[in-house]
Amino acid sequence: MPQFAPLKNDTFLRALLRQPTEYTPVWLMRQAGRYLPEYRATRERAGSFLGLAKNPDFATEVTLQPIDRFPLDASILFSDILTVPDAMGLGLYFSDGEGPKFERPLRTEADVMALRAPDLGSLDYVFKAVTQIRTELAGRVPLIGFSGSPWTLACYMVEGGGSKEFHTIKKMLYSRPDLMHHILAINASAVAEYLNAQIDAGAQAVMIFDSWGGVLADGAFQHFSLQYMQQVIGQLKRERDGVRIPAVVFTKGGGLWLDQIADIGADAVGLDWTVNLGSARALVGHKVALQGNLDPAILFANAEQIRAEVERSLTSYGKPADGCGHVFNLGHGISQFTPPESVTAMVEAVHSFSRQQRAA
Amino acid sequence: MPQFAPLKNDTFLRALLRQPTEYTPVWLMRQAGRYLPEYRATRERAGSFLGLAKNPDFATEVTLQPIDRFPLDASILFSDILTVPDAMGLGLYFSDGEGPKFERPLRTEADVMALRAPDLGSLDYVFKAVTQIRTELAGRVPLIGFSGSPWTLACYMVEGGGSKEFHTIKKMLYSRPDLMHHILAINASAVAEYLNAQIDAGAQAVMIFDSWGGVLADGAFQHFSLQYMQQVIGQLKRERDGVRIPAVVFTKGGGLWLDQIADIGADAVGLDWTVNLGSARALVGHKVALQGNLDPAILFANAEQIRAEVERSLTSYGKPADGCGHVFNLGHGISQFTPPESVTAMVEAVHSFSRQQRAA
Repeated sequence: MPQFAPLKNDTFLRALLRQPTEYTPVWLMRQAGRYLPEYRATRERAGSFLGLAKNPDFATEVTLQPIDRFPLDASILFSDILTVPDAMGLGLYFSDGEGPKFERPLRTEADVMALRAPDLGSLDYVFKAVTQIRTELAGRVPLIGFSGSPWTLACYMVEGGGSKEFHTIKKMLYSRPDLMHHILAINASAVAEYLNAQIDAGAQAVMIFDSWGGVLADGAFQHFSLQYMQQVIGQLKRERDGVRIPAVVFTKGGGLWLDQIADIGADAVGLDWTVNLGSARALVGHKVALQGNLDPAILFANAEQIRAEVERSLTSYGKPADGCGHVFNLGHGISQFTPPESVTAMVEAVHSFSRQQRAA
Repeated sequence: MPQFAPLKNDTFLRALLRQPTEYTPVWLMRQAGRYLPEYRATRERAGSFLGLAKNPDFATEVTLQPIDRFPLDASILFSDILTVPDAMGLGLYFSDGEGPKFERPLRTEADVMALRAPDLGSLDYVFKAVTQIRTELAGRVPLIGFSGSPWTLACYMVEGGGSKEFHTIKKMLYSRPDLMHHILAINASAVAEYLNAQIDAGAQAVMIFDSWGGVLADGAFQHFSLQYMQQVIGQLKRERDGVRIPAVVFTKGGGLWLDQIADIGADAVGLDWTVNLGSARALVGHKVALQGNLDPAILFANAEQIRAEVERSLTSYGKPADGCGHVFNLGHGISQFTPPESVTAMVEAVHSFSRQQRAA
């Protein structure tokens, strides 16, 4: 097990564990990304997105860029969400302007039955990046590891890429639920092992992105996404060197199922912007911390308007109290068209207003 | 006012008004559409989608096709959702494979300030179609008129077409809320007049499609979509020749706001498939009827699986009781790839199982 410098700012971890904090910690989904000119420069040098994501030096460089620029309270591993199915041999590639695709999607019963757990060795570039980022962070802020949820990975594996209506996987789900469950069981084990290896490599919290859970019908969500996230959570290492490793789950579009998502054993639940933070807090009580949930489009407004929306959001959550926890974030990844100075305004507003709230 | 044959099957209208029915009535959003070979044949003869939608004879023909094929309990006017902004002079056109677009979207303050209410005369082709459809239906089932919601129309008017992230309109919403409200106030009046003219022409119920309400943040939804739907509802004629004209509102992705949507004066609220029907019924009580909410992807499964999902859905709603009302529907428009025999299986299952439920 690698050893690292002591953590100087543990506000984020304390909030996830519902311990008191002096202010509301903040980070942004996709905070290392195309809206930053320094990211675009590194991406240019790497030659391609996968060249960037699969190289621990480049991944470390871009992970640290937003930490150097903004007073954020957490960093998150820069990686692709589809590393695991790629390691299962599905052949990840990026076609111009169309996002990620698989050369060998799972379309037939034979495809599904041939699916095997990934060789974790082929994901070593991810774990190396985790250790290198954690080392170079030198304790400034904690490092979050992550994975797609079993269902979200399956969406790409069956559709063969992104989708608008998810007809292919939904057809499988409704007409061959046995095949669907076969894929999801393999994915759940793989995701748990993948996250545990990230924890071994130095991740101080882990997050499961259920980006496509919200496309499922009520009932189907519980059977085909939630159940498998619960399996992952149940298999996670929750401690490293005597320190708790918090786990966060985030189902985009899952606000209606918040009470059920809060019940699967995670420390915190991510929320998108459709959810009222005050109602969500009342619903989950002391069971989990909450993470979210500003509309990323607010960052297209001016600094004064951003500040007003941040204050509205923090006011909706209400004054923090013992046993509750809130991590400020967007309700989705930051847009590539965001002016970086909007992030400065947002982070400053979160820190200053949340201190005022606690003093009031 | 045109006069029409007496209505033979009013099950749909009674369910919307929460009156007892012998079985659960059913219709499908987009039931006249590309999944039907007879629709594709008419569309071919019309030459273009707009050629079809703007010609009352063709519109009547395709509206009646699903009624002739399936024992549905309601018909819905075949028309485009963007007729109103087209009549405002924005220049609706369809580009190959890209959906609807506007030649003159609202991008600047000057664009917004130049926006005027539509000349209802230029929408005469819609009202003619309503009268002709109602006449040719000859009382078989009721005819639903419809419009996009003020917000949903604004999405197309500002974005200039469909959108994935709605950055342009959200930027306007957050940075120039005054311009946004200016557009929405004009839209609300126009939608109310448009629906009232459909009622005058013979529509027996009206539905407001808030297809993009669900992309809004909590708070923004109430201010920029819900408030304006409430204005529309408040201006609607609710009776014609002494008969109540029920109004239905449907916000896709609006399940979290169901209690607020149920409060704006509509007779019924549409639900997408993420909502649990039983919970929704408990939440709204006797306030409104509910319409929905099967995942359209279920229609890709076989007849037995479709029947099982229909039964699950009807069981989730529970045994109908006085003062409640349920209209079976999909949670979204039917996919163009649906086998028509799946619709046969679905409609048959709804009718037979819902009769069994009432007998039990």
